[in-house]
Amino acid sequence: MDQHARPDAEPAPSEQAASAPAAPFVIGIPIYDGVDLLDVAVPYELFNWMAQCEREFLPDAPTRLVQLVSVDGREVTTRDGLRFGADLLLDKCGQLDLLWVPGGDPTRLQQLMLDARFIDFLRRQSVHAGHVASVCEGAMLLAAAGLLDGYRATTHWAFIACLGLFPDIRVADGYPRVVIDRDRITGGGISSGLDEALEVIALLANDEVAEKVQLSVQYQPHTRFDSGDPSVARPPVYQPGSDRQCSIPGMAETIRKVLYPSGA
Amino acid sequence: MDQHARPDAEPAPSEQAASAPAAPFVIGIPIYDGVDLLDVAVPYELFNWMAQCEREFLPDAPTRLVQLVSVDGREVTTRDGLRFGADLLLDKCGQLDLLWVPGGDPTRLQQLMLDARFIDFLRRQSVHAGHVASVCEGAMLLAAAGLLDGYRATTHWAFIACLGLFPDIRVADGYPRVVIDRDRITGGGISSGLDEALEVIALLANDEVAEKVQLSVQYQPHTRFDSGDPSVARPPVYQPGSDRQCSIPGMAETIRKVLYPSGA
Repeated sequence: MDQHARPDAEPAPSEQAASAPAAPFVIGIPIYDGVDLLDVAVPYELFNWMAQCEREFLPDAPTRLVQLVSVDGREVTTRDGLRFGADLLLDKCGQLDLLWVPGGDPTRLQQLMLDARFIDFLRRQSVHAGHVASVCEGAMLLAAAGLLDGYRATTHWAFIACLGLFPDIRVADGYPRVVIDRDRITGGGISSGLDEALEVIALLANDEVAEKVQLSVQYQPHTRFDSGDPSVARPPVYQPGSDRQCSIPGMAETIRKVLYPSGA
Repeated sequence: MDQHARPDAEPAPSEQAASAPAAPFVIGIPIYDGVDLLDVAVPYELFNWMAQCEREFLPDAPTRLVQLVSVDGREVTTRDGLRFGADLLLDKCGQLDLLWVPGGDPTRLQQLMLDARFIDFLRRQSVHAGHVASVCEGAMLLAAAGLLDGYRATTHWAFIACLGLFPDIRVADGYPRVVIDRDRITGGGISSGLDEALEVIALLANDEVAEKVQLSVQYQPHTRFDSGDPSVARPPVYQPGSDRQCSIPGMAETIRKVLYPSGA
C-alpha cells in the first residue's frame, strides 16, 4: 500500500502494520553489451527463489528485489547474442544493498575497466552496499575500481594470472568456486555462480534458506565429465600452464593503464 | 555466400568450396511467458560455447545456431520477471534439428499442455528433429504432446509423480539429472540443464567438445550444502514423501484432460 498515493487517509489499525513495510533489500546486477548470460541469469534466478521462500524460515525477512541495472540502454545483448530487458538505467540507480558484478566479453571488460562513469558507479555503490560480489571476470571490474585491494579474491580460471597483476589483491590459491573476505565475495568462472549465490543466500538469510533454494533448482550436480578447471583438465582440452601468465589479449596493458593512468 | 542471390555467377574454384556451406544445425528453444530463466539460459550459453569451440576438435562440424522461438510475441517474461528477446516467432519457425523444451510456471505449463497450437508445434517438429529434449517441467509439455510415450524419462523432482500419471511413459527411478532414451533426452530440475547440455554436446559432437565447454564455464561444482534433491534433503527444507503424489495444483486434472480430451 503506497501512502504517498493517499496522503489524507488514516489507515485502520490492521492496515498500519501492512502499510509501513520495510524498504526492500535491493540486489543490483549491472548488465552491459557483451555480458555473460549465466553470470546474470544464475544469481537472478537463485536470489528470486530466495525472495520467494525466505519467509517460510525467517518471517521477518525483508522483501528481496533483484534489479538488472543497465550500462547500455533499455536492452542489452549478451556475449552470445541473447537480448535482456533492463529494470533500470545506471544513472537512475539508487543505493543497492548488494552489488553483484558479472563478467563478459574480454574486449568489453577492458572498455569498462577504463570507463570512468562505470568505475565511479561501482565505487559509489560500494561505500554503503552491505556486500560487493563478482562472478567470473566481473572481478576484473571490481579490481579496476580498487574494490578488491587488500582483499582475498578469485575469478574465472583463465583470468587468475591477470587478477594477480593488481599488486594489492591477494589472489586465492587454486581455482576456488567462491572466496568470501569480509564484505567482498568473488566467484570463479560462470557456473561458480551457483555455489556463490548459495553462499550469499546463506550470508543474507541462513543455511536452511540456501538449502531450500538448492532444492528448488535441484542442484545435486553430477557429470561424468571431469574437465571443470585446470586442476583436472588435460590435453587436448586444456594445455597445462596455458593460464600461468595473463594472456588475455590487451589485458595486461589495460591493467597498466588502470594502475598508472597518467602513463607513469 | 548465397548462390540464390547471384544465380548467373560462375564461382571461381576457390570460391566453390566456400560458397556451399552446409545448412546450420539449428537448436530451437521455445520460450513463453512464465518460462524458467535457467531452463533457457543454461542450454543457450552451453550450446553457444559448443558452437564456438567445436571446430578445434571437429573441423567439419556444422555451424550450430541456437534460436529462441517465442510462443508469446517478440519479448517474453520469465517466471521471475526477466524479459528476453525472441529470435523468431513460433509460427515462423522452420524445421529444427534439436528441440529443447524448458519448464516454467505450473499454471502456464498447464495452459500450454492444453494449447493445440503449441502441442501441434512440438509434434510437427519432433517428426524430423534428430533429438527432442526437455529440462525440468518441460517434460510435462513433451508428455502432453505424446512425445514421451514409450520412452524412459524424467523431470523436476516435484513433478515426477505427475509425469507418472501418463500411462505410457516409463518414469526413471530416483532423481536422475539426465535420461537419454534413443532420440529423447529429458533432464531433472533447472540446474540439471548443465549436466544435460553437456551430454547433448557429447552426443552431437564428442566428449572432448563437452569437456572443453565444461572447462569454459568452469563447471567443477562444489557446494557445502547437501539438499539438492529428495534423496538427500531433510526437514525443515524438505518433507519426506511430499512429492510421492502429484500435488501440483490442477495438474492431475490437466493431465486427465490431455489423456481424455472428450471428457470420457
